[in-house]
Amino acid sequence: MTAGERLASPAHLERLVELFHSSTISRSMGITLHYDEEQRAVFDLPYDGRFDHFLNDVHGGAIATLIDNAGWFAAAARYPTWIVSVEFQVRLHEPAGRQPLQAIGSIVRAGKRITSTEMVVRNASGVLVATGSGSFAVTSSPHPER
Amino acid sequence: MTAGERLASPAHLERLVELFHSSTISRSMGITLHYDEEQRAVFDLPYDGRFDHFLNDVHGGAIATLIDNAGWFAAAARYPTWIVSVEFQVRLHEPAGRQPLQAIGSIVRAGKRITSTEMVVRNASGVLVATGSGSFAVTSSPHPER
Amino acid sequence: MTAGERLASPAHLERLVELFHSSTISRSMGITLHYDEEQRAVFDLPYDGRFDHFLNDVHGGAIATLIDNAGWFAAAARYPTWIVSVEFQVRLHEPAGRQPLQAIGSIVRAGKRITSTEMVVRNASGVLVATGSGSFAVTSSPHPER
Amino acid sequence: MTAGERLASPAHLERLVELFHSSTISRSMGITLHYDEEQRAVFDLPYDGRFDHFLNDVHGGAIATLIDNAGWFAAAARYPTWIVSVEFQVRLHEPAGRQPLQAIGSIVRAGKRITSTEMVVRNASGVLVATGSGSFAVTSSPHPER
Repeated sequence: MTAGERLASPAHLERLVELFHSSTISRSMGITLHYDEEQRAVFDLPYDGRFDHFLNDVHGGAIATLIDNAGWFAAAARYPTWIVSVEFQVRLHEPAGRQPLQAIGSIVRAGKRITSTEMVVRNASGVLVATGSGSFAVTSSPHPER
Repeated sequence: MTAGERLASPAHLERLVELFHSSTISRSMGITLHYDEEQRAVFDLPYDGRFDHFLNDVHGGAIATLIDNAGWFAAAARYPTWIVSVEFQVRLHEPAGRQPLQAIGSIVRAGKRITSTEMVVRNASGVLVATGSGSFAVTSSPHPER
Repeated sequence: MTAGERLASPAHLERLVELFHSSTISRSMGITLHYDEEQRAVFDLPYDGRFDHFLNDVHGGAIATLIDNAGWFAAAARYPTWIVSVEFQVRLHEPAGRQPLQAIGSIVRAGKRITSTEMVVRNASGVLVATGSGSFAVTSSPHPER
Repeated sequence: MTAGERLASPAHLERLVELFHSSTISRSMGITLHYDEEQRAVFDLPYDGRFDHFLNDVHGGAIATLIDNAGWFAAAARYPTWIVSVEFQVRLHEPAGRQPLQAIGSIVRAGKRITSTEMVVRNASGVLVATGSGSFAVTSSPHPER
């Protein structure tokens, strides 16, 4: 795979999915990842009430966790080398409504040094809960072995 | 208390601290809040390995959770009425280093309609892990009863 | 027109176009505005070399001017009352290439208190020069008379 | 000078000041740059009414121009090699009040690949008009000759 190439190999995506599911945050929060047919990163968070703010709906931090993941994994799909999160922004539009959430991350521009992504979070009813955007630095290091 | 006034009453701050600790995310992640002498919102997250990314350090989403909280609670201290998160940005500077993290949120400007905050996250060694900023809409509704 | 309604009246859009063209920045920089069939705000900036950085291409500030305008005017089209810029973010992807630029602003979510927009800037060759996003506070005041 | 070193040489700063003043945007808008004793980048914009929005106060785009410059020149002072703007965010707090504006950019963190900056804009009365933050990618290329 060449940096910024349109399509990643299935093996590269499988490895990323496996890496994500090996993280403790994935297990602690019950978040899962798959890539859709456009190689966008799709994260699902079930609703279980453990990550609520004091008014008993999903905390913005849980939403930000999805947005951060969606950006990084959308970007990582495009590069054979390691990428590093620089920053991301979260825009909160509607309450999650105590529902499962799905975040989708996609590439806005895959550059040589920086890749930019956008992220969308909807609840199970289709309500636009949040949007986000982020930038990630592309390094020349290989993906680290775990 | 008048909107934007420099100092909140101790009772208002106590109530906010109590509200935060009643949230499930506070308990699930072990996050605690206090206000310092300048009425900045100070959040502490212990390191316990449950919210790590796949390279086994604190996930950006956990850091974003601190930043979101630090902004909202810094802002809420200044207003007798309810405030709503509009957006926040997270800049990731250094790995958390598998250490406890502390986030401090403070007011940049407390307006009639919007309040802006800035947030700083350091680890127990004093390393600047992340910075953030956010905006919050001021409503005319009272703080909801739980 | 009701706040957040899908379509603005032609008279409302005409008034906004006229207001923009009455601004000194419009004339000083040669920027023009029209609304497209989806009522997105479309701004055109000719290239004339007067707003270049020291490497002789369009300065990020000129691009940010387009992005700010595109957000505000996309948002203002949806509301009968006055709106106020809260913040906007600019992501710079490619040099403008000493070409005319076009920015398009559209609504992500039109809320009661806050509206969020996204903005895209391309040069005359179609290169994605920049993207942006912003939030705007909705007031209950009428649009001021000039 | 080594990347990220605390102090730049006077010659490096002088060259940056000279480069800025050679830009057409500097002359078209009347913006000037100097570095203060902490090597923060200080930009001054006189008020002359040519870059106003339609309510006859300084346009957010002119403020964003100051913020973009303040970030880039604060960052460039720390690196012997070329840096590239990735993104910046602008938070608008108060009207400029038809007054001269001063923007100050300073480093939040100077990394190997990315440097983060914060920017503050005040008017001549000391009112906090806007704040900003940005990230810049550090390249290995020398500063280009003009």
